[in-house]
Amino acid sequence: MADQHKPRGPVDKAIPAGDNRERLVCTDCGYIVYDNPKIVVGSVVRLGAKYLLCKRAIEPRIGYWTLPAGYMELNETTEAGAIREAWEEATAKIRIDGLLAIFNIPRLSQVQLIYRATLVDPAIAPGPESQEVGLFSWEEIPWSDIAFPSVHWSLEADRMLGTATVFQPVTNPGAPVPTLTRDGL
Amino acid sequence: MADQHKPRGPVDKAIPAGDNRERLVCTDCGYIVYDNPKIVVGSVVRLGAKYLLCKRAIEPRIGYWTLPAGYMELNETTEAGAIREAWEEATAKIRIDGLLAIFNIPRLSQVQLIYRATLVDPAIAPGPESQEVGLFSWEEIPWSDIAFPSVHWSLEADRMLGTATVFQPVTNPGAPVPTLTRDGL
Repeated sequence: MADQHKPRGPVDKAIPAGDNRERLVCTDCGYIVYDNPKIVVGSVVRLGAKYLLCKRAIEPRIGYWTLPAGYMELNETTEAGAIREAWEEATAKIRIDGLLAIFNIPRLSQVQLIYRATLVDPAIAPGPESQEVGLFSWEEIPWSDIAFPSVHWSLEADRMLGTATVFQPVTNPGAPVPTLTRDGL
Repeated sequence: MADQHKPRGPVDKAIPAGDNRERLVCTDCGYIVYDNPKIVVGSVVRLGAKYLLCKRAIEPRIGYWTLPAGYMELNETTEAGAIREAWEEATAKIRIDGLLAIFNIPRLSQVQLIYRATLVDPAIAPGPESQEVGLFSWEEIPWSDIAFPSVHWSLEADRMLGTATVFQPVTNPGAPVPTLTRDGL
């Protein structure tokens, strides 16, 4: 799959035939680089009432606490990606329980899909991208050292939902519902 | 944003420092092309009991009927993308009502986010990528000329959910829940 995404020479901006936006086009072979938003997959992992968090060993926000989450890879599913990230960042074996949240970060062209998951084996250990991993009760969570707003949002959504198993995924707090104006978007 | 994704010369495969997979790396400037799954955003749009469908004017599956859906663009949200696609393909003004489905097509490295939406103005017309658009009762839907399996899945999910407003998004029919084996993934 990856080979098809391979410009052979330098790329420049142009509007391809039939399109309505500037894209990057290879000036040698004409290959069009469609640059689209990227998906982050992750999970709120619980063992009973305790939450799994990872202290970041990499930038951005090195030294701050986050959920096991990261960019989805080619040819995997969203659930498999969340399971892989928990394994890579915390050597954690998890079971996916449902889709907790979908967060949009349009400034970064990023969509975050955050699952609810259960830790199926209490043995955890930091992977190469984590300085430390831990299981925290709600009160023990290092609230002042959380890496990203969406970590707060995810933890709060999980707590709000309690034992519910049927729910709509939450979205960005206060996100305006987009509506179409008379002239289009 | 797009400018940063611009290799200056030819790209070749290499495993970047600190990574665990081959990526495409520019042999001139060292820029790493992270190729990740792409997001398709779309919606099951209803006006009362009728469903909005679009007859495709482009490949693949030209001449077959589909939902208004397409690749998410940079710097938009998933909801705004679904609204934009309904406008581009059917000149349809819609209101997003909830996340209906998340489908994974790992063979194509594609994640489809399908919303439930309401047509807020009955005036619809084919956009450049549609030969025809129409509103169909369940029985009138051209079932033998549907473009993609996920169109079937989405329509069936909408019908199954009926008037429910609180539900988990459906996933691929019969999708195995991924589980972690003893040695990792």
